Amino acid sequence: MDMWYTEKHSENVGITMRVTQTLFSGSSEFQQLDVLDTLEYGRMMLLDGLVMLTERDEFVYHDMIVHPALFVHPNPERVLVIGGGDGGSIREITKHPQVKEAVLCEIDGLVIEKSIELLPQVACDIDGSNPRVTLHVDDGLAYIRAHQNSFDVILVDSTDPIGPAVGLFEEDFYRLVHSALRPDGIMVAQSESPFYHAQIQKDMYRNMRTVFPIVEMYQAFIPTYPSGYWSFAFASKKYHPVTDFKRERAAARTFYTKYYNEDLHLGAFMLPTFARENIAE
Amino acid sequence: MDMWYTEKHSENVGITMRVTQTLFSGSSEFQQLDVLDTLEYGRMMLLDGLVMLTERDEFVYHDMIVHPALFVHPNPERVLVIGGGDGGSIREITKHPQVKEAVLCEIDGLVIEKSIELLPQVACDIDGSNPRVTLHVDDGLAYIRAHQNSFDVILVDSTDPIGPAVGLFEEDFYRLVHSALRPDGIMVAQSESPFYHAQIQKDMYRNMRTVFPIVEMYQAFIPTYPSGYWSFAFASKKYHPVTDFKRERAAARTFYTKYYNEDLHLGAFMLPTFARENIAE
Repeated sequence: MDMWYTEKHSENVGITMRVTQTLFSGSSEFQQLDVLDTLEYGRMMLLDGLVMLTERDEFVYHDMIVHPALFVHPNPERVLVIGGGDGGSIREITKHPQVKEAVLCEIDGLVIEKSIELLPQVACDIDGSNPRVTLHVDDGLAYIRAHQNSFDVILVDSTDPIGPAVGLFEEDFYRLVHSALRPDGIMVAQSESPFYHAQIQKDMYRNMRTVFPIVEMYQAFIPTYPSGYWSFAFASKKYHPVTDFKRERAAARTFYTKYYNEDLHLGAFMLPTFARENIAE
Repeated sequence: MDMWYTEKHSENVGITMRVTQTLFSGSSEFQQLDVLDTLEYGRMMLLDGLVMLTERDEFVYHDMIVHPALFVHPNPERVLVIGGGDGGSIREITKHPQVKEAVLCEIDGLVIEKSIELLPQVACDIDGSNPRVTLHVDDGLAYIRAHQNSFDVILVDSTDPIGPAVGLFEEDFYRLVHSALRPDGIMVAQSESPFYHAQIQKDMYRNMRTVFPIVEMYQAFIPTYPSGYWSFAFASKKYHPVTDFKRERAAARTFYTKYYNEDLHLGAFMLPTFARENIAE
């Protein structure tokens, strides 16, 4: 059988991948979850039919949602991930020796369960083996409301602003994140594709700017995401991601990063003109 | 009729786009040429079934093959494009007021003819209307062999290293380009996807380094090219693309660039770790 999975990025364009088998297909109370095996990208997790990660290119997303903030904050001891039930962000966070506690708050326990079972190289630090990691299967909003002034860095590792993640793109949510951060805290949130999602970006960055004094966009290429060109928002109370970045500290890291490095950190904030325009104030 | 065009980027992955009509389909002595109209990306030109450009994202490729070299060279008066029969590179070159002559040497006259007819916003400066532009329908190797010490910048705007462009990735070709450049000349060549084409990059950069003292890779996001992550080689006799770049000169440009800008110029040379490794010496 010659089976192909096609994710349409709009009504008129999509990515198509040859699939060898379906490893899991089922629903939680929140969403549809599928794990497929593909020849080009290895195992692939889909939520409501959209690619969340593949084994071959997840290194880009997880390097880039984690390392910029953790190399800008001078002492990231307590880090929270909202969403991110696959565990990839937690895996990268725990590579930083200063981190004393990495907390995962994922609304959908099925994502955690199936990631541990089917994506063990991604979920390797949320399987109970890492004493610095704490898991909560809970709504991210409820969790941060109950944990004020608690975190150095909060990563919003969410799906698109449809379905269970819609509240994670609104001003009220950013106010809660701001309160859950310590006085010099940093939030990073995935912020969609500058090429396809200009209006979402415009709204999202406006919402963040009403709450945080420093808001900057940075970019990464992720082949299996719409357009391949993806972005992250860096929202911060005190530290600027470029002018407060200590290049030598990032260069002295003791672990390998296949995408991130101390030069790329700076280059990631140097945006094409059209991307700048999406979020112009 | 619900018609989709799918370009496979390997046996196991591809991009698929909804097509409204076929505007041209035919063969020259060199290759198959098709121009389709798509709903998401506008008109699209294919050579031997591979996407060369679309109206919606061609601005990225053409900004990035042209402007880095033309803002690094202090006085780019004579510029040659090898390949590039669609005219997009010539359009961007002629935006630079110092350019006295922009020469296009395209092997396939059918590409020029159909671009003028069907992609007028791309081919607007190769239709005979621009007195600074000269066209040659000729083999690029023969042309540069006959034009030694003649150009400030040479752009290799080629297809992939299969079919008519295979010779444009070899050491002998780079030696000819070197000789056709003036003593402070710069070559830029498209250099494939760091994500999919590691071996091609390794060979290509090794070949360039045997000929040019300065060889650097830079990157751009091109949604309709394989992986969306594309690269260019900057090979130079004298000027370094970063340390000899005059930011204020690029910032003072008098024309709009939707992708390129003076900050992005620097960021484009800050590569992910795996891309650096592809071309490590």
